[in-house]
Amino acid sequence: MGTIYLDHNATTRTHPDVVREMVRVLDREFGSPQSLHALGRRARDTVERAREILAHHLRARPAETIFTSGGTEADNLALVGAALAGEASGRRHLVTSAIEHHAVLVPLQFLQQRGFALSVVPVDGQGLVDPDDVRRALRPDTALVSVMAANNEVGTIQPVAEIGRLLREHAPHVVFHCDAVQALGKLPIDVQAWNVDLLAVAAHKVYGPKGVGALYVRKGTKLVPLVRGGHHEKGRRAGTENVAGIAGFGRAIELYEAGGLGSPDEVGQLRDRLERRLGEAVGDVRVNGHPQARLANTLNMSFRGVEGESVIVDLDLEGVEVSGGSACTSAEIEVSHVLAAMALDRRDMQAAVRFSLGWENTQEEIDRVVDLCAAIVAKLRRLKRRP
Amino acid sequence: MGTIYLDHNATTRTHPDVVREMVRVLDREFGSPQSLHALGRRARDTVERAREILAHHLRARPAETIFTSGGTEADNLALVGAALAGEASGRRHLVTSAIEHHAVLVPLQFLQQRGFALSVVPVDGQGLVDPDDVRRALRPDTALVSVMAANNEVGTIQPVAEIGRLLREHAPHVVFHCDAVQALGKLPIDVQAWNVDLLAVAAHKVYGPKGVGALYVRKGTKLVPLVRGGHHEKGRRAGTENVAGIAGFGRAIELYEAGGLGSPDEVGQLRDRLERRLGEAVGDVRVNGHPQARLANTLNMSFRGVEGESVIVDLDLEGVEVSGGSACTSAEIEVSHVLAAMALDRRDMQAAVRFSLGWENTQEEIDRVVDLCAAIVAKLRRLKRRP
Repeated sequence: MGTIYLDHNATTRTHPDVVREMVRVLDREFGSPQSLHALGRRARDTVERAREILAHHLRARPAETIFTSGGTEADNLALVGAALAGEASGRRHLVTSAIEHHAVLVPLQFLQQRGFALSVVPVDGQGLVDPDDVRRALRPDTALVSVMAANNEVGTIQPVAEIGRLLREHAPHVVFHCDAVQALGKLPIDVQAWNVDLLAVAAHKVYGPKGVGALYVRKGTKLVPLVRGGHHEKGRRAGTENVAGIAGFGRAIELYEAGGLGSPDEVGQLRDRLERRLGEAVGDVRVNGHPQARLANTLNMSFRGVEGESVIVDLDLEGVEVSGGSACTSAEIEVSHVLAAMALDRRDMQAAVRFSLGWENTQEEIDRVVDLCAAIVAKLRRLKRRP
Repeated sequence: MGTIYLDHNATTRTHPDVVREMVRVLDREFGSPQSLHALGRRARDTVERAREILAHHLRARPAETIFTSGGTEADNLALVGAALAGEASGRRHLVTSAIEHHAVLVPLQFLQQRGFALSVVPVDGQGLVDPDDVRRALRPDTALVSVMAANNEVGTIQPVAEIGRLLREHAPHVVFHCDAVQALGKLPIDVQAWNVDLLAVAAHKVYGPKGVGALYVRKGTKLVPLVRGGHHEKGRRAGTENVAGIAGFGRAIELYEAGGLGSPDEVGQLRDRLERRLGEAVGDVRVNGHPQARLANTLNMSFRGVEGESVIVDLDLEGVEVSGGSACTSAEIEVSHVLAAMALDRRDMQAAVRFSLGWENTQEEIDRVVDLCAAIVAKLRRLKRRP
């Protein structure tokens, strides 16, 4: 029996068509897009084609779409770039939510160390931000609000469009950033309807390669660059473009739009089956996250009475790959700040396991995982009851 | 007749073995190195293997080698990171040379805007920095010196080891950064012998992929991160690792060390032939750069009486790909700051063409390029003499 990969919120397997496109570019369009000659022009065309595909997918204009080395860099560029650009106007207050990814929280904490004030809006027990809390956090000197589109650990989908609308109404000068890294390929993203000024995405969450991301920057939004040098990406991100990676990103979006990466409905049915059957077979579980407003592929479940860590390790021994909290810190054993913000009790936090599905998963895999979890949790519970 | 690529200082064609290694990783080791499960561990092992290969090549320790998204990010991290880290000690003076890459000059200018003082050391007519000038530029509050290993436009090799030695003697507290992006794969790099604290390299200059670079950080060197988030790269560079790109980088270095990317001697003989035969066939040329202390693959030549730009365009029409000044700004027509610092007269600057050779180039290609240049320059000179 092969490996069953249920860790798609951490990263996805690069789609074979994406790999093929990357090989084509690495092999034949290896020029620098900055070069004047034919090979350079071809590389430039390849980058611009991918930019059009991605921009269209985000309902943005190509000129508003900057390629970066990933979602984390895109978040850093958005937050540090907009905060530093806004400094001149004397606005030094930032607002975010308690369940953002570290790629958002850590740059904001850095800005806090450098004299910015930071308000952190809470979430409810299902991981949902209340737009009214965002509105109440606003101050006359608020420069920026950052709220993610969907949470990576529990999958809760935030009311981004509602927050965007209230910011436009009550604080039109505030820059609104959205970390949509986990939403891309799982939710329709619409920078216009959402009223965001900045929005970060990453290729490797949607069957594209690692090492490529993008930042939407609404026309007129001031941004101090993070990586400086040549005039690449309209002077907003220097460095020779990762042409193959960018082309692969474009191909992944094309695949998604053409239905080649499954549909939220299909993956949602599998996830619901997993959730229902785990509840039946394991018993005494808690589903973490919002029952409805949740990414269709994500199930964060606490197996009460056991350590989630132990379940993950035992599943790994059986060839099933799942995760605990945020993938980006999961090599370190620590309590999830997301589950803590949702006010889970400590034992439920430690009992949490994240299953995140992808288009390749099958019903057979799901059923096997249910059986394995039932056996593993039963064994761990037995061990725990021993004197 | 196929394309003749003589723009290797801009970027190189990813070696087929590197592409193969990347495909293997994209396909089979697609996990996140931060994940606990088997796939994650395999990805982590792949990254660490590449780190060992690169560190060994630089005469560094793996723990001192951080992967980045490229040379430009590595330079930015080095300069901004070390300057901000040194701010606490009150040292706010920076020293660099006049012929650095924009990836170094622009971040330094940004620091200057933010209150740092910047001294720019001149070069001689052959593009060489005088270590005594560096010594004379030092002040009690100097935080950082940045001098490149070899210039990208003219190939002049700088006396980095000598500068490193004098800094250790006269100013041991000063952080010494070296942009070695153009030196990698063309010169032996030795961070110990060079006495550098920071050193930037990029994969795509040595037949690896674009979108990957690295920064050597000597143990004990303080550095404020540029991209913040998770604990990746020992907390010095957040973001899911570009595992395939990193693996490709490692493979490229292995190939280079095994002699699979030609030798400086071989490429130097071709370059010398190109230089000699162009001088004979075209006439009235000027070689820009140092006659001896120069990268073996680089020839920057002014064809007097014509625009280098026109030569480049005409060569492109014949399938020969060369470049003008720095590749990273060559899509914009501007005078090279490197040639200006070498005090070329304006006409010689505008007449400059950069030929940069690689391991795939053949004597037949070189001879064809000589013939084409002779015909093109003769035609352009005739056109210019017309009333």
